[in-house]
Amino acid sequence: MSPVQRPLRLSQSMLTTLRDDPADAETPGHRLLVRAGYVRRSSAGVWTWLPLGKKVLDNVARVVREEMDAIGGQEVLLPALLPREPYEASGRWTEYGDLLFRLRDRKGAEYLLGPTHEEVFTLTAKDQCASYKDLPVTLYQIQTKYRDEARPRSGVLRGREFLMKDAYSFDLDDEGLAESYRRHREAYLRIFERLGLDHRVVSAVSGAMGGSASEEFLAPAAAGEDTFADCPRCDYAANTEAVTTVAEAADPAAHGPLEELDTPDTPTIDTLAAHLDVPASAVLKNVLVKIDGEIVAIGVPGDREVDLGRIAERLAPAEVELVTADDFASHPDLVRGYVGPQKLPVPYWADPRVAPGTAWITGANRPGTHARNVVCGRDFTVDRYLDAVVVEPGDPCPRCGTGLRLGRAFEIGHIFQLGRKYTDVFGFDVLGPEGKPVRVTMGCYGIGVSRAVAALAEQTHDAHGLCWPREIAPADVHIVVAGKAVQAELADALTARLSAAGVRVLLDDRAGVSAGVKFADAELIGVPALLTVGRGAPDGRVELKDRRTGEREELSVDAAVERILGLR
Amino acid sequence: MSPVQRPLRLSQSMLTTLRDDPADAETPGHRLLVRAGYVRRSSAGVWTWLPLGKKVLDNVARVVREEMDAIGGQEVLLPALLPREPYEASGRWTEYGDLLFRLRDRKGAEYLLGPTHEEVFTLTAKDQCASYKDLPVTLYQIQTKYRDEARPRSGVLRGREFLMKDAYSFDLDDEGLAESYRRHREAYLRIFERLGLDHRVVSAVSGAMGGSASEEFLAPAAAGEDTFADCPRCDYAANTEAVTTVAEAADPAAHGPLEELDTPDTPTIDTLAAHLDVPASAVLKNVLVKIDGEIVAIGVPGDREVDLGRIAERLAPAEVELVTADDFASHPDLVRGYVGPQKLPVPYWADPRVAPGTAWITGANRPGTHARNVVCGRDFTVDRYLDAVVVEPGDPCPRCGTGLRLGRAFEIGHIFQLGRKYTDVFGFDVLGPEGKPVRVTMGCYGIGVSRAVAALAEQTHDAHGLCWPREIAPADVHIVVAGKAVQAELADALTARLSAAGVRVLLDDRAGVSAGVKFADAELIGVPALLTVGRGAPDGRVELKDRRTGEREELSVDAAVERILGLR
Repeated sequence: MSPVQRPLRLSQSMLTTLRDDPADAETPGHRLLVRAGYVRRSSAGVWTWLPLGKKVLDNVARVVREEMDAIGGQEVLLPALLPREPYEASGRWTEYGDLLFRLRDRKGAEYLLGPTHEEVFTLTAKDQCASYKDLPVTLYQIQTKYRDEARPRSGVLRGREFLMKDAYSFDLDDEGLAESYRRHREAYLRIFERLGLDHRVVSAVSGAMGGSASEEFLAPAAAGEDTFADCPRCDYAANTEAVTTVAEAADPAAHGPLEELDTPDTPTIDTLAAHLDVPASAVLKNVLVKIDGEIVAIGVPGDREVDLGRIAERLAPAEVELVTADDFASHPDLVRGYVGPQKLPVPYWADPRVAPGTAWITGANRPGTHARNVVCGRDFTVDRYLDAVVVEPGDPCPRCGTGLRLGRAFEIGHIFQLGRKYTDVFGFDVLGPEGKPVRVTMGCYGIGVSRAVAALAEQTHDAHGLCWPREIAPADVHIVVAGKAVQAELADALTARLSAAGVRVLLDDRAGVSAGVKFADAELIGVPALLTVGRGAPDGRVELKDRRTGEREELSVDAAVERILGLR
Repeated sequence: MSPVQRPLRLSQSMLTTLRDDPADAETPGHRLLVRAGYVRRSSAGVWTWLPLGKKVLDNVARVVREEMDAIGGQEVLLPALLPREPYEASGRWTEYGDLLFRLRDRKGAEYLLGPTHEEVFTLTAKDQCASYKDLPVTLYQIQTKYRDEARPRSGVLRGREFLMKDAYSFDLDDEGLAESYRRHREAYLRIFERLGLDHRVVSAVSGAMGGSASEEFLAPAAAGEDTFADCPRCDYAANTEAVTTVAEAADPAAHGPLEELDTPDTPTIDTLAAHLDVPASAVLKNVLVKIDGEIVAIGVPGDREVDLGRIAERLAPAEVELVTADDFASHPDLVRGYVGPQKLPVPYWADPRVAPGTAWITGANRPGTHARNVVCGRDFTVDRYLDAVVVEPGDPCPRCGTGLRLGRAFEIGHIFQLGRKYTDVFGFDVLGPEGKPVRVTMGCYGIGVSRAVAALAEQTHDAHGLCWPREIAPADVHIVVAGKAVQAELADALTARLSAAGVRVLLDDRAGVSAGVKFADAELIGVPALLTVGRGAPDGRVELKDRRTGEREELSVDAAVERILGLR
């Protein structure tokens, strides 16, 4: 039996719901969390959790903690205020750029507010583990993180101060890491199941974190920040950033010789395709970008858009940007609008669609001139292949070739097999079973705890307000007193009875507030079961409503109590 | 019945105890928390909570949370990253000086890491409460605070990043505030009782916080940072900073006329008293200090030491410092070593002992010259009285006159009747019962959660290690497997049985670790009950030991289980 619960009486609670949408709210979930009194903005991307919001946040944290404990995770608490040195050693002090909040103490020593804790967890485990007998170990914390996002958005969804569960596994060998990774993956699936979050596991790019294998857990939602692709036929699913393209090589001998064309005033794909009366897909588009300041040309089919974000994610932490007019000015050998991969003075990279043996119409590196039958591998070489175009619906599944579907989602978790990236930086060895030092291998596993609240709000609301899953809701039942003394007395008695049985009751016993306002607030707040003590009260009858389905039922008090006890 | 507990198995846990004291540990509690593997230093005054430490910290937080909820406190979570503006409005952006961690974001906007949250709680309550019907309200959070202490010390006792419970009450009038204050005071007494902390409530100085009445909760300990006085006869107790002196006025006519004395080479009290053959207590010592840069002379009896810390606490946030040689150089009218309160070019303040009608030997403001029969109120006037001397044992109790006792302690809680200091700054009014705006009055109430852990360690250890009170301990019982398979099996069975009954078990099932090392670690870790499964195991006998008293008892397994269940 659950312990006695303390009911939440609105007559004694600080709760201000808003009838109107806040001006700056970008997504439905954000609007509702603000309107229903869960969160309030403190400064850009920095939020206050009001009483109802704190309960939901704690519920998410509790589920995460229970499942992490169940796989043997040991909870610790590391500081948010971290010294520069370990991040200097890993290179992230610089690589993180403006994303890092940096500060100095009174003595001038440099610190950062931790955006993620690989460095200091590695040092903690190194301090505590000396022998193979001390491994495997998984440490985790539920802790406040800081990232100075350029565009904090959607309320607590992408904040600059946010609550995260970050876990780190330390293993002796690759098999151990694979096993730790598998256990975390399963724990994450259980967590998102319990949270009531619709979720997808997709292949991901490791990005600035480093390491090899990684998967993301996405919560599909219309307002999602990420795009993911999945295959309607096989089980392939990936963040579009991570979708790979399989292109087949063609026979270079199938094409005629390279031929230059006089094409005045055709500096764009559209003008060229119109001039030559060919489809844009026949043209090779060469986009010039700067990667950490070095110019690189990237070739993609003329009918596809270059995805700079995806390229940046792949090359992280390198900085990727488009070239500017100034760059062209200082490179007279790059002919704007007529760049071709033949005899190019900069490295040439390409999307896999520019496969060996394929022939293209492309720039001839002279103003007003293009060339046709420019064959990959014959007339030019590709220094590096990388997926560079915006993924589109119908692009082939890399596993089975079926056309992919695309969807929007929020990232709610990310797991990485980091390997030895950080243990190498800090020289973390343990004494192995054969008496020799063994370099430890590492995984890291994150869940956005505050973000999960926001993702739930995005997924589970309706036109009237929030609709929390039971385990996460701020209460099990929301009792509305719709009437006077007799209703108030019955509601009090019901509250006492349910609270004693361990049910978390939110009681709207506000005086001087109309039943209509109370009902509207109840829908807005989104507790899964709504119990109205109204006209039937003198006869011991109450109304129970399911917040999500809207189904209502008039019941005796005893039947209502029994029903509510059964709901948990 | 308590829910099933997950046992903590040392064979699968990260725990490294240290045989030797850490080099930088200043107090016994600090040494033991590090040696027993509860905390590790990250940087100066910034600490990592390892698995055992995190459990103890959570236990303290849980007790605090339960008692705050019991008095109707509503838990929220405000950011640690706070914008400059509200602290600019209250003046504390500047007043806090170097104690504040300040930083800028990528756009150059200024932020601070919250040292305490009066400003932003006032703004939160103002945003949420519009009418007298919304009051009273008490909000609280258990949250990470930041203070860039000049001398962080004693491990988690005085950290630069630390966990605090801060609560804020908002009331319509003074009676409401007094009632909120009373409820918090009682909740605090219950909290410290449950935590097992020996504690004293003492009168305190409000300091930089502002406001009127305030009391501190102190945990007496030999290594304590604060000194408090209490009366052996009445119930008076106060931080020495707050002890007041009651001095009686004397009859100025009882003294002869002021008389100047030739006293060459007597610039100190000692040289003067020896030269004149009088006790130091007959001499008036005039100490020059700078208060926010303005020079003030403060008079105290010659046998007493000036307490600059106490003066600073009283005058906070004003800055108080001793004058320097440079200050004398720029004030030739102040004669070093021969300053007297007669015709002084700077304000003259005095300790209450320099009462009206008392006569003194003091400087004559000329080199080598003093004066006697310098009578307060006749020959000089006091611009302001304030308690300025170091309190000494035997100083009179301000309530009953009995000689005071002094003791050392750590501050573990502080409660303030702030009044309208912050609601005035932010114009926080609610609509009163008569339809007119009413300025809200406020209290604030803090408990150092991480500090309470440190204070407990200071108070409850012995020569062998820590001795946690049951409610705070990382486990209820520590089971040591002292033997081989038969002992391990019995210990496992006991662990399963106790865990199922809701007992928190720490099981030392490490292989390859001697029983001696396990016993030493158990004493060091300090779980209140120690169960050894050793030689008696084949006969179903185990040994139960009370960590604090050292009492041991051999029992059957059933009797041991019953005893342990009864302990909780």
